[in-house]
This record gives sequence, C-alpha cells and structure tokens, in this order.
Amino acid sequence: MRALVTGGAGFIGSHLIDRLIERGDEVVVIDNLSSGQSSFIQGHLDSGKAVMIKGDICHPDDVVKAMTMDIDCVFHLAANPDIRLGTRITDTDLKQGTVATYNILEAMRTCGVKNIAFASSSVVYGEDAPLPTPETHGPCMPISLYGASKQAGEGLISSWVGTFGLQAWIFRFANIIGARGTHGVIFDFIHKLKNDPTRLEVLGNGLQEKSYMEVGDCVNGILHVMEQSTKPLNLYNLGSHDTASVRRIAEIVVEVTGCHNAVIDYTGGDRGWAGDIPRARLGIEKMLQSGFDVTMNSEEAIRHTAMCLLDEIGME
Amino acid sequence: MRALVTGGAGFIGSHLIDRLIERGDEVVVIDNLSSGQSSFIQGHLDSGKAVMIKGDICHPDDVVKAMTMDIDCVFHLAANPDIRLGTRITDTDLKQGTVATYNILEAMRTCGVKNIAFASSSVVYGEDAPLPTPETHGPCMPISLYGASKQAGEGLISSWVGTFGLQAWIFRFANIIGARGTHGVIFDFIHKLKNDPTRLEVLGNGLQEKSYMEVGDCVNGILHVMEQSTKPLNLYNLGSHDTASVRRIAEIVVEVTGCHNAVIDYTGGDRGWAGDIPRARLGIEKMLQSGFDVTMNSEEAIRHTAMCLLDEIGME
Repeated sequence: MRALVTGGAGFIGSHLIDRLIERGDEVVVIDNLSSGQSSFIQGHLDSGKAVMIKGDICHPDDVVKAMTMDIDCVFHLAANPDIRLGTRITDTDLKQGTVATYNILEAMRTCGVKNIAFASSSVVYGEDAPLPTPETHGPCMPISLYGASKQAGEGLISSWVGTFGLQAWIFRFANIIGARGTHGVIFDFIHKLKNDPTRLEVLGNGLQEKSYMEVGDCVNGILHVMEQSTKPLNLYNLGSHDTASVRRIAEIVVEVTGCHNAVIDYTGGDRGWAGDIPRARLGIEKMLQSGFDVTMNSEEAIRHTAMCLLDEIGME
Repeated sequence: MRALVTGGAGFIGSHLIDRLIERGDEVVVIDNLSSGQSSFIQGHLDSGKAVMIKGDICHPDDVVKAMTMDIDCVFHLAANPDIRLGTRITDTDLKQGTVATYNILEAMRTCGVKNIAFASSSVVYGEDAPLPTPETHGPCMPISLYGASKQAGEGLISSWVGTFGLQAWIFRFANIIGARGTHGVIFDFIHKLKNDPTRLEVLGNGLQEKSYMEVGDCVNGILHVMEQSTKPLNLYNLGSHDTASVRRIAEIVVEVTGCHNAVIDYTGGDRGWAGDIPRARLGIEKMLQSGFDVTMNSEEAIRHTAMCLLDEIGME
C-alpha cells in the first residue's frame, strides 16, 4: 500500500510511519516542519522507504505535489498542535485545521484518491458531555478553537464521503503522549524544571483530570481499527481505560527528573486556560469491541513519556 | 435593541426583520444581494428603521463596516442557499459558510459584541439519524458540503462561547418555506411549470419525505426561544410536527398553478442528488417545551407557499 501522511514528521505521524513501514507500506510524507522534525523519520528517508515533501497543506499547490493517483490512503494528521494558541490568535486553527483539511479532500477528489484516516480529538465533545463519553454523544459543542477545527474537519470528511464516495476513518483521540512529543503538559513541565529545578508552575488548580494514551498504542489502534471497520464512514474514540490528574503528572515529572525539592505552584482556577476542558475521558467500548486494547494505562503512559522526553530534552 | 442581520435582504432574513421592527428594534442589514433582494425590506429602509450595508461577509473589511460596538445581537443568516451547488463547486460552502462565520465571530470579538443567533440546519444530522431527530443525536455526520459548513459554523460559535464569553442561540431548521422564497423545491417546481405547463420533472423517485416549516413560524420561533433560553449556549431544532413527500409537493404545486394536465416525471433514485437526505424530520420537543408551537403543518405550509410564490413568480 502507498500511504500519504500529512504531518508525517511530527509526533504521532512519525510513530505511525514506523508501523506503516514495518508492515511493508511505501510512505509519502508532507510536513512543513513547523513542529515536526525530519530527524524523527530520517532512517526511513535514508532507506528510501519514505519520501519527504517539505510543504504546507495550507497551500493547495503544495498538496497537489504530494497527492498523486497512486496513493491508496491518506493519513491526515497535520494540524496546529497548540490548543492554547486559539485564545490569542484566532485564525490558526481555521487555516491549519479546517481549510487545510478542505485542501486535502479536494486534492483527493481531483486525483481519485479514495481513503482517508483523520486525527480528530476528544475536545470536539466540549465540557458538558457525560464521562466516559461515547461516540454517540450529542450535541458536540467544542469550547476551544482547536476543537472547532477538528469538528469542522470531521464534517468536511463526512460530506466528502456522502457526496463523492470517499471511505473514511475518523479517530477522536484522548491525550496522546510518548517519545518525540513536541508539545503538551509533560513536555512543558520538563522544560520548566530544566529552567528552574526548584519550582514547577502548573496552570490551573491541578485537579484537571484527563485520559492519556501512549502514542504506540494510538497508532496500533488506528491500523487495527482500519482493518476491522470497513463501512464508508467509521468513527472511533481512541483512549485508555482511566484518567490521571495534572497534579499527579506534576508529581511524576518531578520524580522522574529527580527535582525532588521542586515546589509545585498552582496558578489556580479549574482549568489551564479559556477553552481548556477540566475533565475528559473517552468511552472506549467501540475500540475494545474491535478487538484492540491498550498496553498502558494513563499513569504508565505518563511515566513512560516522562522518561522518554527527559532523555530527549535532557536537564543540562 | 440594535440588531445586525446578515443575509437580511434574503428569504428568512427579510421575514425576521419584519418581526424585529414590529417589536421596536433597530436593524442593520448586511447582504451581498446574491440571492436576497433589497425590495424585500424596502419599506423598512424607506422608514429609516433599517439601514442596509451592501457588502459580502466573505470579506472581513465589509464585516467590519457593519459590526459596531452598539450592536446588541447578531442574527447570522447569510449563507449559500443552494445545497446542490456543493456537488459541482466545492469551496462555496467553505467560503460563504465556514469562513464567513469566522469573519462574523472575529468582528464580534474585536468589537465586544456578545450575542449571536445562528441559522443552522437539520442537514447537520446526516442520513443515519433516528427520526424524529432530537438535538442530542450524535454523531452528526453531514453528507452535503452545505451541511458540513453549518456544522463548522456551529462549532466555531460554540468555541467562541467557550473561549471568549459569547452568548449564542443555534437553530437547526427544518425546510423553511414561504413568501419571498428564492430557492427550493416549490420555487423550482413553479418555474418548471411556467416553462412547460405540460410536464413537471421531479429529481429522485418523489418518495423523499421531509418536514416543512412556514417562514413566519420560523422567525417567531427564533424570537420566542431567545427570550426563553438564556444559557451561554442554546441549541434548538425548529420544525413542524409532520412531513410531506416530494410527490405530494408536486401534486399540490400542479393543483395550485392550475396545470392540471401536467405529467409528473420522476428521474428515479432515492434522492434528488448526491448529498441529498431522503428522509428528515426534526424532534421538536424542546421547542414545544419552550412554549412555542407552529401554526401550520407541513402540507399547510407547502400550500400557502405555493400560492405566495405563484403570486410572486406568475405563470405568464
């Protein structure tokens, strides 16, 4: 199979490509390297099993270069990874999320490429959803601009399935963490402690409680579900069985980094920023029924990630 | 109250403005007159109770001209009215729906305008929803590009509520019909019979079955709900109690136009075009519980509309 991976040099993308090449696929990557790094996939580029197109999917001309009729499936992962950014700059998620997804779909339509997997997010559910939240929850009322762009991407894909006969797999991810992480709470905490090992500032009161999934579990889940579910449009939550608090994450990072004397300072309030969802946990019954289960719970994934990122970032 | 109505010279917009001015509001209209007509609101323009800004909400500069800090509420109705268009031209709904809604919200944010009512649609539910479909149905999987743009607009509004403290009312409309209609099945049928009174071509097998709501009921429902529901984010289906088939609409239009000898030709297939939803009926319990009910059922609304549009279009 020949796969096009948008954001393929990024955190989740590079792990996905490891698995795709492991199973024998050929991979085309399009990435603007704004948060991804070609070093994440350098081995595959060197071996010739992956080719890299440095381009921005916000620009239709770049997408056209990457989208060729011999692509069997598009894995559309590229997006602004920083949910908080929308509180300050309001058009990033619109352009890099919604419009970029349109560009991908339109190039697929004109090239006759028929299959797409899309990285959506638990944040599409908003903050009034029951926990754990099943795929059938409605109405979805995202409270972040990032969440709005993921919902818009889902709708665009769904309409391309309904109007132009695409087949699609939409995955609503829990917080995905692991090696090569380029953003997120664990990444931030390690950088803060590297700057000042005596103090760790935590946004909010630390009681935010979310579900974390290790990135290897995430990409294995994607590929498993795509083999099992073959309807025109397939929607799956991907997450782990439990949650962890930000307070617990702070404790684990302090422990793993060896900054045992660090004072943990909470800025207060029930959430990290406007548009942050204090409590999130995905219903994963549908994922489990497909025959897939995670290998790590939230706390195991957090500890594993803290160790990987500590190794990558270093404390010196 | 000072209201800004996008698409205010259009079908639903002009009826809404009638009611707003009747209750004493001042109205600013922004409309590009692509399907709206200033004649629909000429009386209000002449009386000075409404002012018209000819502009396109796809252009942020035009939106800025209309959005001033003294606006109490934005009624955002402007959109491409032709659902079918998305099967041929794929960026119309993205630009005139999604991006235009972003332009409105961003101008509200920068001006400090805090309230918005939004015309969404039953088509956001897609075709696999149970009938009647309640607001709590999920997942919403629109099959038309128009539906995707309405869903994206809902998500943008929801995220502005969650991130920037807006208050919003989102209305998912049934098929809204009535005087001054500029598109839709009844409008099309009258034009077809005007061209050839002996033959009426109907797209699909005529068994498509949807719910129709008279536009006066629709705008009364909007204003009633907005007075009753005062949460930060309020979502309501607006529709009538029953449905009518396209076959029945064809019969009523043939009868009302007096083209009694017209042969009704069905093109066949279960839907009018790719992305058309064959069967739709909104759950209206929430609307009824707010204390609002419609004055016409689907067939009454269809007959009333056929007579109004016949009068407006004429058969000569």
